[in-house]
Amino acid sequence: MEKIRVGIVGYGNLGKGVELALQQSPDFELTGIFTRRAPETMQSVTGNVPFFHIDTAKDYVGKIDVMILCGGSATDIPEQGPHFAAMFNTVDSYDTHAKIPEYHASVDEKAKQNGNTSVISTGWDPGLFSLNRMIAEAILPVGKEYTFWGKGVSQGHSDAIRRIEGVKGGVQYTIPMESALERVRAGEDPELSTREKHMRECFVVAEDGADKDKIAETIKTMPNYFDEYETVVHFISEDELKTEHARMPHGGFVIRSGKSGRDSKQIIEFSLKLQSNPEFTASVLVAYARAAYRLNKEGQSGAKTVFDVAPAYLSPKSTAQLMKELL
Amino acid sequence: MEKIRVGIVGYGNLGKGVELALQQSPDFELTGIFTRRAPETMQSVTGNVPFFHIDTAKDYVGKIDVMILCGGSATDIPEQGPHFAAMFNTVDSYDTHAKIPEYHASVDEKAKQNGNTSVISTGWDPGLFSLNRMIAEAILPVGKEYTFWGKGVSQGHSDAIRRIEGVKGGVQYTIPMESALERVRAGEDPELSTREKHMRECFVVAEDGADKDKIAETIKTMPNYFDEYETVVHFISEDELKTEHARMPHGGFVIRSGKSGRDSKQIIEFSLKLQSNPEFTASVLVAYARAAYRLNKEGQSGAKTVFDVAPAYLSPKSTAQLMKELL
Repeated sequence: MEKIRVGIVGYGNLGKGVELALQQSPDFELTGIFTRRAPETMQSVTGNVPFFHIDTAKDYVGKIDVMILCGGSATDIPEQGPHFAAMFNTVDSYDTHAKIPEYHASVDEKAKQNGNTSVISTGWDPGLFSLNRMIAEAILPVGKEYTFWGKGVSQGHSDAIRRIEGVKGGVQYTIPMESALERVRAGEDPELSTREKHMRECFVVAEDGADKDKIAETIKTMPNYFDEYETVVHFISEDELKTEHARMPHGGFVIRSGKSGRDSKQIIEFSLKLQSNPEFTASVLVAYARAAYRLNKEGQSGAKTVFDVAPAYLSPKSTAQLMKELL
Repeated sequence: MEKIRVGIVGYGNLGKGVELALQQSPDFELTGIFTRRAPETMQSVTGNVPFFHIDTAKDYVGKIDVMILCGGSATDIPEQGPHFAAMFNTVDSYDTHAKIPEYHASVDEKAKQNGNTSVISTGWDPGLFSLNRMIAEAILPVGKEYTFWGKGVSQGHSDAIRRIEGVKGGVQYTIPMESALERVRAGEDPELSTREKHMRECFVVAEDGADKDKIAETIKTMPNYFDEYETVVHFISEDELKTEHARMPHGGFVIRSGKSGRDSKQIIEFSLKLQSNPEFTASVLVAYARAAYRLNKEGQSGAKTVFDVAPAYLSPKSTAQLMKELL
């Protein structure tokens, strides 16, 4: 079997997740990892992958089929997306929802000019959640859509806690309200306020001698981040933070509550329960890298989203096998 | 807006559901309903749709864009699928899983010969459940897949009950075992026997003077249908059967329990809770009718399954709108 040759651009949690995910997919071959850091100082998780400086990527045109972009959405991807789309097929998990149309246009232009194919904004939200929102709405046009996130770590909220005076460390979990989920699943179509949808649970390590009451109060009243939510604050030891809260779990629910024909209630629900958010996003990236490669082979160039990719392109199985085993 | 002109072939519960679903989708126009019965004796649910004899369908070539086939999978669809694919774009919910490859081949041949596009075996299983099984497996290749059905009415089991001596009427619900679902969701990856996955609940109307104990015993020990399951039998009045059990609810769960990278447990779950099984299947058929029409406009002819259709084709929204509103 001819393997799909891929490169990873950026080697944080997501890049490491992609390296590991590729090991579960024998139709891929990892050519190398591209980094801004000094390549000779790097060591890959699986131990035997070469590192190259990101500026040398152009030397790999024709040697790599798909570049998997694993940088951050704030500054890396908006620049790297079009840059790499001019040289390679690419896949990314750009997740700044409001700026996706603009990003799509910039990648699409470069990809089309160079006959490459880029699948943008994959992962789970945007990504699988978007797919489910879209399909459910197309099937049940009369209805209401709900997205709940969690239980999972929010990096932004965890950072906000850690900036408070007297806080040594901490982590914040966004938790969907079970009562709200139940009302949606029961077909009540409720209008839900922010505080009715999610609560926030914080695990905080205080500095020695810090005023814990004051820290808790500062968290709970922090505008935008916590003040609109029911917020619970637990103080824990540094050890406990390390042993119990080192994983990056996440997940959530997309529910469409619709009505068909004779006022029949129809509920479509999709949910994820992830022990590792970056590893899961990485697994989605790898499946869409397979799609980008195949779409390109068929001459379909330009920027694509999860909406544009026929599901069969994600699987290494043949059409006949899919039909027999999974339909 | 130019409307998609459709015809309905077969006017049972599914055909009626399609007629109703089309009313929620203003981009369609229902040209007529094709039936084997005498057209002049028919009356449509919405009251103003013309009926035509099925043998006159050929007169509508060029006047109907997509035929939505609503016959049964046992004998109607295997014959009607290729027959109509030779004349029109079609969509159907053929659900005899084991025979799908053979059916696909027969429709594909006729559709390709005539430049038509047919989306076969849509609905929810096969259909949305298949889509979720496939996508989840592609993303988490290391893992285990579980499908549970229910709570819902099984026509086959209900029929089996009604054939028992002394039974006047009855309905059977297949119910997934909550304990099994919980074990799967907890990531235990259990091996589940038939009786651990589902139970069966029967509501039976006995004839006057019939031996209820004997009826219950006959149901519970019926080979293939009930003997492998935990089965509960309730005796109810004819009135109660009519008022409480007239709907055709169904649904189920597709869960993939996978492991990524560093042994992280990742759970993907898709579920449906449907008050009306035929109306939901009808809603799915209508969305795929839109896809069949568009694929054909693009010159993609032949038989397709849900795996071959890019999700965007299901929605009346433009690419730009989808990206902005749903990604």
